[in-house]
Amino acid sequence: MNVSQTRFDFRRYAGFVFDVDGVLFRGEEIIDGARETLRYLKAQGKKVFCLSNNSRNDRYQYAEKFRSFPLEPEELFHAARGTAEYIASLHPRARVAFLGGEGLRTELQLHDLTPVEVTVNPPEVDFLVVGHDPEFDYAKLTGAVRILRRGARLIAVNMDRVFPQAEGDIPGPAGLVKALEYYTGVQATVIGKPTPTLAHLALRKMGISAEEGVMVGDSLLSDIACGKAAGMTTVLVLTGEASLEDVERSSLRPDFVLQDVTALIEEGET
Amino acid sequence: MNVSQTRFDFRRYAGFVFDVDGVLFRGEEIIDGARETLRYLKAQGKKVFCLSNNSRNDRYQYAEKFRSFPLEPEELFHAARGTAEYIASLHPRARVAFLGGEGLRTELQLHDLTPVEVTVNPPEVDFLVVGHDPEFDYAKLTGAVRILRRGARLIAVNMDRVFPQAEGDIPGPAGLVKALEYYTGVQATVIGKPTPTLAHLALRKMGISAEEGVMVGDSLLSDIACGKAAGMTTVLVLTGEASLEDVERSSLRPDFVLQDVTALIEEGET
Repeated sequence: MNVSQTRFDFRRYAGFVFDVDGVLFRGEEIIDGARETLRYLKAQGKKVFCLSNNSRNDRYQYAEKFRSFPLEPEELFHAARGTAEYIASLHPRARVAFLGGEGLRTELQLHDLTPVEVTVNPPEVDFLVVGHDPEFDYAKLTGAVRILRRGARLIAVNMDRVFPQAEGDIPGPAGLVKALEYYTGVQATVIGKPTPTLAHLALRKMGISAEEGVMVGDSLLSDIACGKAAGMTTVLVLTGEASLEDVERSSLRPDFVLQDVTALIEEGET
Repeated sequence: MNVSQTRFDFRRYAGFVFDVDGVLFRGEEIIDGARETLRYLKAQGKKVFCLSNNSRNDRYQYAEKFRSFPLEPEELFHAARGTAEYIASLHPRARVAFLGGEGLRTELQLHDLTPVEVTVNPPEVDFLVVGHDPEFDYAKLTGAVRILRRGARLIAVNMDRVFPQAEGDIPGPAGLVKALEYYTGVQATVIGKPTPTLAHLALRKMGISAEEGVMVGDSLLSDIACGKAAGMTTVLVLTGEASLEDVERSSLRPDFVLQDVTALIEEGET
């Protein structure tokens, strides 16, 4: 079902970048038809890429979630991996202090970077990365402020405000990044959506131009804003965060609004 | 010694509000002539008031610091006490969640407010107060976000960025307030300098108008900005944070710049 005015024709595009939560998954549950849609697109010779703002898992944990999908490890990307790749491209073998979990540490190591714990009296480092860190405390805050005042660059894996959890929302990295910016005057480079950094990386990995690419997501402020910033065609699906009413109220207009990912090919087939 | 162009004449004013650190004290050490200056001003019939952004101590701990000064407890005020007084004036017997130490808790209790610990699943409260909290952690951050999303008002004791310590600067409440504002969209009411709240309270306690009052401080961004916002005459002393070069570079111009507090009366005497 196509709820937008214009028909979506998947045949015009060479590559599709899918957000994960609310698009392919709802929690741990696969959304109906998600696997089949990706399989169909690949069978038609399209490039497919999954791109999540998640920074909690390493690539192996992340790939495990997709074990029943027709996807290669290189078609799966998330903010922790993108952050490490970004830093390694700027400064190979950099020393990187991080606020985050084991997934972020593993990704830093896999990119030949040296992960450094944030302590109240931290050693010299080149970067400070802020991810999701449930072990965050005042000692780490103090260490992070000192690291930045000594000149390290500040990288935010994403600017997610809250993560919905069964027991109630929990805070994401966004506020802590704002806190560190305010304490130190240092401005963060944000890797995750809505900045286009991860989308540019996806386009490069797929070997296609922005005009040939489609960003498919459930969030206006994260996915659709990212796709637009990257110059891609944007498709909002209604299986996650945003409703049709949100679209009508928003100044961020996706190029197409579809009920779910299966409508990508239903439309193409008609 | 008067380093400004215009002569300062203390006789024109009815009341003097002194910042504490960098003006009357340097750490625990009393700055030369501070006690004598206050004694002289009082002997001349002037009102005298001490006003600190400190929120860590209760009024008894704070008064102890001034035991050798010619001051009454009611002439000593700090941000923790001012915060409690402000909340009690808005909402008597309110339930107040707080990020801060025992000094803040005591001041809330002394104003008949109910202090509530911030936990990951917090009870209903009317206000959330952010002070200096070395016990801050991710569970408290989560609880604070949940409290604000349920509609509690956000109060910042001050917006101090860092506190100088012998072992290195440590972060003040400012960044955490910014973080909570960003997470929740709730705007904080700031009690401490540079907002005029505490200065207005001092003027009211002294029973004088802003035109009759002088703010004496060592910080342009905190004390001088506060005095100006309150409509008072401002005097910067050079025994603390700001240098003459800072004054020249700043758009915040104190009405007078004096070497130290003793120059308040030297000038008056000449």
